[in-house]
Order: sequence, then structure tokens, then C-alpha cells
Amino acid sequence: MERIITISREYGSGGRLIGKLLAKKLELPFYDKELIAMVAEQSGFAMDYVEETGEYSPASSRLFNIAVGSMYRQGAMADDLPQADKIHIVQNKVINEIADMGPCVIIGRSADYILRERENCLNVFVHAKMVDKRARAINYYGIEPDRVEKALKKRDKARASHYRYYTDQVWGMASNYHLSLDSGLFGIEGCVDLIASVARD
Amino acid sequence: MERIITISREYGSGGRLIGKLLAKKLELPFYDKELIAMVAEQSGFAMDYVEETGEYSPASSRLFNIAVGSMYRQGAMADDLPQADKIHIVQNKVINEIADMGPCVIIGRSADYILRERENCLNVFVHAKMVDKRARAINYYGIEPDRVEKALKKRDKARASHYRYYTDQVWGMASNYHLSLDSGLFGIEGCVDLIASVARD
Repeated sequence: MERIITISREYGSGGRLIGKLLAKKLELPFYDKELIAMVAEQSGFAMDYVEETGEYSPASSRLFNIAVGSMYRQGAMADDLPQADKIHIVQNKVINEIADMGPCVIIGRSADYILRERENCLNVFVHAKMVDKRARAINYYGIEPDRVEKALKKRDKARASHYRYYTDQVWGMASNYHLSLDSGLFGIEGCVDLIASVARD
Repeated sequence: MERIITISREYGSGGRLIGKLLAKKLELPFYDKELIAMVAEQSGFAMDYVEETGEYSPASSRLFNIAVGSMYRQGAMADDLPQADKIHIVQNKVINEIADMGPCVIIGRSADYILRERENCLNVFVHAKMVDKRARAINYYGIEPDRVEKALKKRDKARASHYRYYTDQVWGMASNYHLSLDSGLFGIEGCVDLIASVARD
């Protein structure tokens, strides 16, 4: 079955690169910055702001999910919603539009949850031990060794908080995904091959 | 690399069967009831009691981990420890003895955590959606349809509680394992093949 592959990942696990190589290998469209650009265009917010807010900032309104549901039905957006919620609503819409176009690879943005009612998703979570994430963050992201562990934890804490807020699920629980992989053990190429073999079935 | 494969699983996911078929396929010793029998023999408790207590009952002493450490050093066991802790200590010892003997497949019993310092483990978590676990529990375990969901949740809650108590980790978090699989999507044979292909690398 041709699948929509969502890749959620711990910061420093190489999940984004795995997704990129996977898309290339399977000849599928790849949505990472591309998705953020679409949300920025449709929402009128700057790309940087969308990037930060759409994955890391929990919104302030506890009535968010009710609001989203009612706005979808009305096809409108309330003016008094917090900006993070507005971005999340546009992001939700863009991810569904992308999924409507067919198989692809989508990085992050709670896409696993947003597309949860679709039968043809393969939801993947990529993680790694701190020692492996540390090495990756220092070598590839250029983060200073003495602040890298704090930076890694902070980013994942923000992701977890955002995910919890919008999905009411615990970020990183194996049961949210179809397949979870330790990229430190399997390696970047190993993860790409494993996901590709499963996605083709 | 020849690996020790630990399989943790949600109740009803078929993880035990996956482990059994995997051990057969890879021609490795399989430890499930076998492990419980060894713990029963070494601890002097009945098998049923060991089976129930060694995976589902959190102990009462909050000083357990300190106690285990000191008893291992002294080679003795304090008489005033709760029975659940005594069983856990013997289980810990037996799992390490099994691991010393070489590659094998071990089901449950927090073996992923107990063997966490060893380099040659492949820790797997098997889960499935409620609808798939329901069907499995009704068809294969003979649980009544009207109480199956409650029974499934109760058992996993006890596992999570036991795991949390002895490991200080959250049961079912992808990052505790190297590989997590949805047996509903991949099927029992699919999971066996996937784990086998990874374990052989």
C-alpha cells in the first residue's frame, strides 16, 4: 500500500534526515520547511514564527479542540483566538490538504494525530540515547558541548508540551505510532531501509 | 551480532506469541514460563504467585532499589523485605544468569531494564490498537466480550505500575526500547520477520 509516512522525532535523533532520505528513496514528496511555508502563506504569519509556534508552543485556550471543531464546521476563524491556536488550525488544514494529494513524508507538526482517522498512514517515531543525540547535535547542528544536553531536553520538553496540549496524548509513547526506532542502534541508513521495507508492504 | 532479545508487550498484542515464534525462527532459547519456574525454584514461592507478583504487583518499600544494591553486594537477602521485593530480587538474578548464557528471547519481567547495561540487547515493545487487542483477547484468551476492555486495561495498568516502581521509567515510552511495533498493522508474522531481520544485523 502506498502510504503517508509521518515522522515524529526526538531532537538530535536525525529523524528529519531519515525522513528526507526516505522520501528520496521512495520518490515521495517531502514536507518539512515546505509545510511551514504553506502554513505561513495561508496564515499570514512569518515562517520563523510559524516554525517555532506550530511545534513548540502550547496554546493558552483550554477550549481549543472544541473551537477547532466548530470553526471547521463554520469554515471561519474566530478573531479572538490566541495566535498559536490560529497557526495550529491552519497547520491542521494544510496537513490534511497535503494528505489528500497522496503518499508523502511529513516531518513533525503532530501529523500522526492530525491524520489519525486515515487508514493509509504509517506513523513513525525516531529516538536515540542521549549520548548519540549529544554527538549529533554537536557535530551536525553546531551546538556548544557545554549546553547541548540542556538544549536537547528543552526542545523535546516543548514538543511534548505542544503535543500533549493539542492531542491529549503523551508524546513519545510507543502506542501513538506504528513503528518506533532507536536511530543510535540502527543508524540513519538502517532506519531509512527499515521504514522503506515496511512502507512498501 | 547475536543478541539477547527482550520483548515487552501490551496485554492482547500477541507479544508473547511473537517472541515464541521469533525464538523458533532464530533457534534461540525462549524464556517465559521457564523463567518463572526458575524464579519459583530459587525463591521458594509458588509459580502462580511468582507469575502474578513478578510482573503485576508493585512492591511496598520505597527503598527497594537501595535494598537490592546492598543485598547484591552482601550476597544476602533481608528477612523483613516485602515478598514482592524478594521475588523481584531473585528474578533480577535469574534474568542476569540467563543473559550470561548467551543470546535468547525473554518475555516481559522488566528484562529490558534489568539488562540495561549490556551492549548486546535488542529491546522490543509490542503494542496494538484496542480494537485489535480486543479481538485477540476474545478469540485466543477466551475473555468475555463484555469485560474484555476492562480486563486489558487493568492488566496493562498493573504492568505499568510495576515497571514504574522498579525502573523509575514510564512503561511503553518508545525511548525505553530499540524497536516498538504495532502488531495490528504488521501482523504476528510480520513482527517476527521484522525483529528477526534486525536482530541478525
